[in-house]
Amino acid sequence: MEILQVEYSLVCTRRVAGLQAISLRVLRSVTGVRQVAVDPVGAREGNWVYTVCGSAARYAAGDYEVLTDLTIGGIIDHWEIEEPGTSG
Amino acid sequence: MEILQVEYSLVCTRRVAGLQAISLRVLRSVTGVRQVAVDPVGAREGNWVYTVCGSAARYAAGDYEVLTDLTIGGIIDHWEIEEPGTSG
Amino acid sequence: MEILQVEYSLVCTRRVAGLQAISLRVLRSVTGVRQVAVDPVGAREGNWVYTVCGSAARYAAGDYEVLTDLTIGGIIDHWEIEEPGTSG
Amino acid sequence: MEILQVEYSLVCTRRVAGLQAISLRVLRSVTGVRQVAVDPVGAREGNWVYTVCGSAARYAAGDYEVLTDLTIGGIIDHWEIEEPGTSG
Amino acid sequence: MEILQVEYSLVCTRRVAGLQAISLRVLRSVTGVRQVAVDPVGAREGNWVYTVCGSAARYAAGDYEVLTDLTIGGIIDHWEIEEPGTSG
Repeated sequence: MEILQVEYSLVCTRRVAGLQAISLRVLRSVTGVRQVAVDPVGAREGNWVYTVCGSAARYAAGDYEVLTDLTIGGIIDHWEIEEPGTSG
Repeated sequence: MEILQVEYSLVCTRRVAGLQAISLRVLRSVTGVRQVAVDPVGAREGNWVYTVCGSAARYAAGDYEVLTDLTIGGIIDHWEIEEPGTSG
Repeated sequence: MEILQVEYSLVCTRRVAGLQAISLRVLRSVTGVRQVAVDPVGAREGNWVYTVCGSAARYAAGDYEVLTDLTIGGIIDHWEIEEPGTSG
Repeated sequence: MEILQVEYSLVCTRRVAGLQAISLRVLRSVTGVRQVAVDPVGAREGNWVYTVCGSAARYAAGDYEVLTDLTIGGIIDHWEIEEPGTSG
Repeated sequence: MEILQVEYSLVCTRRVAGLQAISLRVLRSVTGVRQVAVDPVGAREGNWVYTVCGSAARYAAGDYEVLTDLTIGGIIDHWEIEEPGTSG
């Protein structure tokens, strides 16, 4: 599971059936790469979360019919930002 | 789900059964990597979209028989281009 | 789906059951990374193809018993080689 | 399966159903990238482990209902740290 | 399927059920990244092999109960080592 930070919500008027009326968040990795995830836990801007990918993402979304490949699994209580490769 | 931009449609005369008569788009990431996706939402050149991968991509294509591993899930209403690693 | 170029056929005398007597191709990405794929469409050296990965790769191979994670989905009619990050 | 080192346990008060009361570890790759994994083997800080991803991760967690995409598969008895690209 | 070279066998006394008494190999990519794979074909140190990932890896292991995400699919008869990006 990846560790990502919530940036903001995503607005998409045109979507496929199976992703309608789902709360989507833009997440950002430590290296700046952005992804979109379904959010069943109510994460807020700035929260560090871990995400579940693959078929488990659909179960984690609370409904296997939700056509996601990335879902927020939980909010991390404390997370120190640190660039990869700099820790001991 | 990844965030990618539609470049153009892909022309492939010879395809496997299961990908025939399907609308294919070439998508481009912020870093310039290209991928091919099935498009069930009617995205146009220049649109920023998010994509669904894995087995969910087949469901998102509207027909599990479509042999795709990447499908456009929705068109993003507004997206600012930004290189990874430059934002605060 | 990835966009890759066919380099040559792969010779493997010892294989697991489920990949015997299958036509294998070495494919090369724009950045030079090589992968092996099952070829059900008859691609030739130098052809640019797109590939299907994951469980869809087994269906695309025409037989779910073929134990592949990458299968050629189609031959691209025209493809201009371009390094990632250099286009507008 | 990837080779990763256990850093510490992860504290997440708010989680999705399916990941509650599960022991989570932060793992770190040789290049410094961090991931979160379910730990069914009782790995300790500093242990080098190998991880199972995808749907196998749920089986490896001992319960398919555990919504993980990464699970520790075993503790490596001896592992020499070595940067990628430096060995013969 | 990836192309990797066998380095050595992996010793793991503590493993999850489902990976016990399975022959594990450490494999190394051209760029030096290491992974662990199940070996059903009897590859030896220095052999170049191609690997099957995802759910196909479990079938390729000869037993779906083997909780692997990477399995050696075959031994490549001849392979010239070449750094990515240097070939024509």
